[in-house]
Formats: sequence, C-alpha cells, structure tokens
Amino acid sequence: MINLSRSEIEALIDPALAARAIEDAYRAVSRGKVDLPPVGHIMFPAVQADCHIKYGHIRGDAIFVIKVATGFPLNAAQGLPNGNGVSLVLSAQTGAMRAVLHDEMVMTDIRTGLGGAIASRLLARPQARRILIVGTGEQARRQIEAHHALLGPEMVFRIWGRAPEKAAQVADACAGFTNVEVVEDLATACRTADIVVMATGATMPIIRHDWIGPGTHITAVGADAPGKRELETDLVAAADGLFADLRAQCLDHGELAAAYTDGIIEAQSVAELGDVLNGAAPGRKTQADITIADLTGIAAQDIAMARIVLEAHDAARGGAGPMSEG
Amino acid sequence: MINLSRSEIEALIDPALAARAIEDAYRAVSRGKVDLPPVGHIMFPAVQADCHIKYGHIRGDAIFVIKVATGFPLNAAQGLPNGNGVSLVLSAQTGAMRAVLHDEMVMTDIRTGLGGAIASRLLARPQARRILIVGTGEQARRQIEAHHALLGPEMVFRIWGRAPEKAAQVADACAGFTNVEVVEDLATACRTADIVVMATGATMPIIRHDWIGPGTHITAVGADAPGKRELETDLVAAADGLFADLRAQCLDHGELAAAYTDGIIEAQSVAELGDVLNGAAPGRKTQADITIADLTGIAAQDIAMARIVLEAHDAARGGAGPMSEG
Repeated sequence: MINLSRSEIEALIDPALAARAIEDAYRAVSRGKVDLPPVGHIMFPAVQADCHIKYGHIRGDAIFVIKVATGFPLNAAQGLPNGNGVSLVLSAQTGAMRAVLHDEMVMTDIRTGLGGAIASRLLARPQARRILIVGTGEQARRQIEAHHALLGPEMVFRIWGRAPEKAAQVADACAGFTNVEVVEDLATACRTADIVVMATGATMPIIRHDWIGPGTHITAVGADAPGKRELETDLVAAADGLFADLRAQCLDHGELAAAYTDGIIEAQSVAELGDVLNGAAPGRKTQADITIADLTGIAAQDIAMARIVLEAHDAARGGAGPMSEG
Repeated sequence: MINLSRSEIEALIDPALAARAIEDAYRAVSRGKVDLPPVGHIMFPAVQADCHIKYGHIRGDAIFVIKVATGFPLNAAQGLPNGNGVSLVLSAQTGAMRAVLHDEMVMTDIRTGLGGAIASRLLARPQARRILIVGTGEQARRQIEAHHALLGPEMVFRIWGRAPEKAAQVADACAGFTNVEVVEDLATACRTADIVVMATGATMPIIRHDWIGPGTHITAVGADAPGKRELETDLVAAADGLFADLRAQCLDHGELAAAYTDGIIEAQSVAELGDVLNGAAPGRKTQADITIADLTGIAAQDIAMARIVLEAHDAARGGAGPMSEG
C-alpha cells in the first residue's frame, strides 16, 4: 500500500495534467458516468468547525476515492493550519486500500484553484485580462496560481481582503511569478474587473449586484458548505448565465442555493461546466453577459487528482503501479 | 500520527472492555448525545459490491471517527477477503488526523459480534442457553465468540448454513473454546432455540414466522445495507418486542424496513437498545415474548472501538497518547 505525504504529493502534481484530468472529470459527471453520493458533513459547533466527506466513482475506473477534509477556523490562533485532509484510494475491483494520500488539503487546494480557473477560462470573455481576487486565504493564492497557469501570463491580478495586510501577504507569495496589486475599494475594483474570483469563507453576501458591470464573469468557490455565501441574491438573479460544477449540489448548499430556495431562479437555468465542455449546453452567449460559475467542489475532481498523483508516482517508480494492477 | 495494522489492533482489543464501551455508545446514542450523520453508501453493481462510510462524534469526545468498510463478495473466488476496512481517527478540537487504523474489518467484525451478544444478553430470557447461529461467514464465528464471552460458557451453540461444510469450518474454528453442533434442518433448529442469531448476507427472508416459538429471542445483524433481509415480514409483525441499535437506520434499511415500509409496524413500536440500557424503555416483558433485535451497525460502536484501541495503545506505550493530547 502506498502512503504519501503532503510534500511528496505536491511534487507529483503537474498543473496542466491535473487541469485536463479535472476537465475530463467534469465531462464525465455531466454525462452521468460518475457515482457521486451526497457529501457527508459533520459539524463541531463548539469550535465552529466542520468535516466533509466527498466520495465517488467514475464508472469503469479501477479506483475510487474517499476524501476527508476538515475546516477548523480556530486553529490559526494556535498556529495550526485550519484545513486538514486525507484521501483514501481504493480498488473498485476488490475494495482493497491502494493508497493513503496524507495531503493535508493540498490536493483540494490545488483542484479548487484549477476548477476555478477552468470555469473562468471557459466562461469569461476571450479578451478578459483583469482578474480581481476576493479573499486572502490559501485559496486566494491557489486561484492566482491556477488562473496564471491556465489563462496565461498576460493576466493582471488585483486582490481585496477585509485585512489589507493579509492581501499583501498573498501578493508577496505570488511575487515570484506575477504581480498582484492590493486594492482597498471593493466596489470600484469589482466595476473594473473582467473576472471576479470569490474565495472567502463568508456566510453573508459580500458582492452587491450594482458593483458588477456587463461582460463580467464571476467564479465563486467559497460556498462549499451549508450556511456559506458570497454573492447577493439580486446579483444571482441578474446574471445572464448561471453555471455549476454539480447542479444539484450548488442548488442545495452553494452560492445559488439562496436564490433557488427563494424561487428566484429555476434549476434548469443552471448549466453544468461539464455540459458546456461537452458542447451539450452553451456557455457565454454575448460579450455583455454577466456569468456566474458556482463551484462547490465535487468528488470527481478528487478522483482526478488522486489518479494523476498515483499515475505520477507509478511513472516515477518506472513500473506497474496501482492504476494498472486493477 | 499512529498507524496500526490489523494484527496490532486485534491484540489491543479486550472483549469485556470493548463490550462496556459499546454499551456506553448505545446509551449515548439514545440520549441524543451522538452526532450520527446518515451512512454513506457507494455501490459497484458490476461486481455486486458496496462500500459504506460510517462516521460520527460523541459530543464532548476529544476524537471523532470515520470508518470505511467495503464488501466485495466476488473476492473469495480469488482467495481474497470479501471485507476490507480502515478507520480514521481525527481530533474533534483541531481536525488533525490522529490515527489510521488499518483494521481490515477486524474492528467491525468484533464490534458487530459484541453488539449482537449485548442485544441477546439484554433481551433473551434469563434461562436462555440454546443459541442457533444462522450463517457461516466470519460474522458467524464472531457471534459465537461474543455470545460465549458475554453470556457465559454455559451457552450451547448450534450452527446452520446452506453449505454444511462451511458450517463445520466455523465449528472447527470455535473448537478451542466451545462445542458447536452443525445442524441441517433449519426449521427444527429454530423451534428448539432460545436465541437465534442471524448473520447471513441474505437478500430474501430465510426464517419463517411459524418456525419461531414463544420466548425466542432473535438477534439479526445481516441486514446492514439496502436490499438485505433475513426475516419474513410475518415474523416481524408477530414479534412482541422490536429493538434496534438505531431506530431510524433500521427502519430505513435494516431488517425492520420492509415491515415498516408496508405499514405493518410503526416507528414508535421499535425501542433502541440504548433506551433499554438506560431504563428509558422496557426490554422483554414476559417469558413468552418473541423479541427481535435488528442491528444495522452504527458509527457510535466504531467510535467506541477506536477509543479502546487508542487507549490500549496509549497505555502500552506508558505515556500520554492521542486520547489525552486533546
């Protein structure tokens, strides 16, 4: 059985390969080829914390994956990481454990970043250059990395956070590959952005509908659990195109849930990224469309990440590995 | 972080301590002190297999547990075990991984056996001696071990299986601590048993209502997933006392589900073992009652097992371990 640590896993991930694997996973989901049981949740109200269990199987795959991710926001005060995680990779032929990937969230962080950049690349106007990142956590940096890698080095990044010094830390962390400007006026920054990437843990809307101009694309990755949201309902209602990684999940507890529960949007008005990638649904229709992609994160992405990590591990060993053992 | 193998785990389990911990877990569940999210299921129809994810948290505990168990019945033909499993133990204060218990199902096998024996000890007539085990899998042996340990060496065991040679193998495996008689006439064996323990993977009822006489107690542990059942609906309808480890789960996919779905029994007619242990519900009322305990297996048992394994590991190391690091 394979046991890999966070640093071993991170070294095995090629972003371009991972992005292709995640796009394939989105396509498979929207073709109905992935078993994705409901996400498991367990809450720890005493410490405002939660644990998610995401799992699934792409039919025909030799493996399936169970991912456990925890979010304990009070950890930071003790100098500990808020997020933790492990992915279990099991054989879909025998149920045997193939690998324990002690990634401590790095696979989730990277795949969430790549998912966001895939959505932005697919749905923003082709000439979009100005990207506003809202949020200052680990995911803010991952979104910048992924958008830089997938949309190209010509992208221009700004970042806003409630605490400007934290925004500056993210900018510093990205200085090795791109310039990131810290901004303090969120409304103006939204009005001058082509792409707004929401990566906060907010539980109340941050972005008002009158801040978002025609042609803007919004990728929202923060609402990954019940009770979280980043966008005003009026903004969701005003959008010309609504997109989701997994429609049912986004309507249940994603950014789109409040508008759906209030009867302001209908399920059939939300297209899945996989449908757009498959050509089964249109993406952006006009230059002036406001488009919103709500990404709650799906196990199919985690399966894709586990696959590419194990394939890279296998290739590095130069022999038959878990992916070919069957 | 602690990594323990199957043999290390098995050596750390004291059955009497484990039984007490499981009884405490049942009590806590019925007092509403345990968060038990719905069990996750993923199915592999191509190989008739399934994977369950059971998880939960006893409020106030320093740890929580996520247990993954797989059942791949075609493995046996390749000389592989049908069941596999791993339990993840995480801190309820920080979300950090404390231990990966690679128990390969031994914790589940033992706790399921102990759960069955706890139910039989609680609900059978005090003078019950004759125990019929139905089934010849690993769980048949575990039920004999647990009933012998908890109900006492004066218990007299019989075993029935579709394949008598497999029943004989179970009897042989138990020969070191008790005599087990293999029987071939199931109807007669049921009529002369004080306790019938159902431990098959059946999907159609095996036991007919007219085989079960007054005063008999039945413990059924086989129906742990949708589609499985061992007892005729008429037998469930005829019982004087119905008991469950977790009412909602047993009515959803346990032995009691068919009778409940058909409107033959009502939810309030099912008492939880924890309520009986707490004195909040009566157990057996008369010597002539037919009682049925339906055990689908609950994460609280898995938490209890993980606790006692880690406490024993800690004690063996003679120092502060994961249970006290908190």
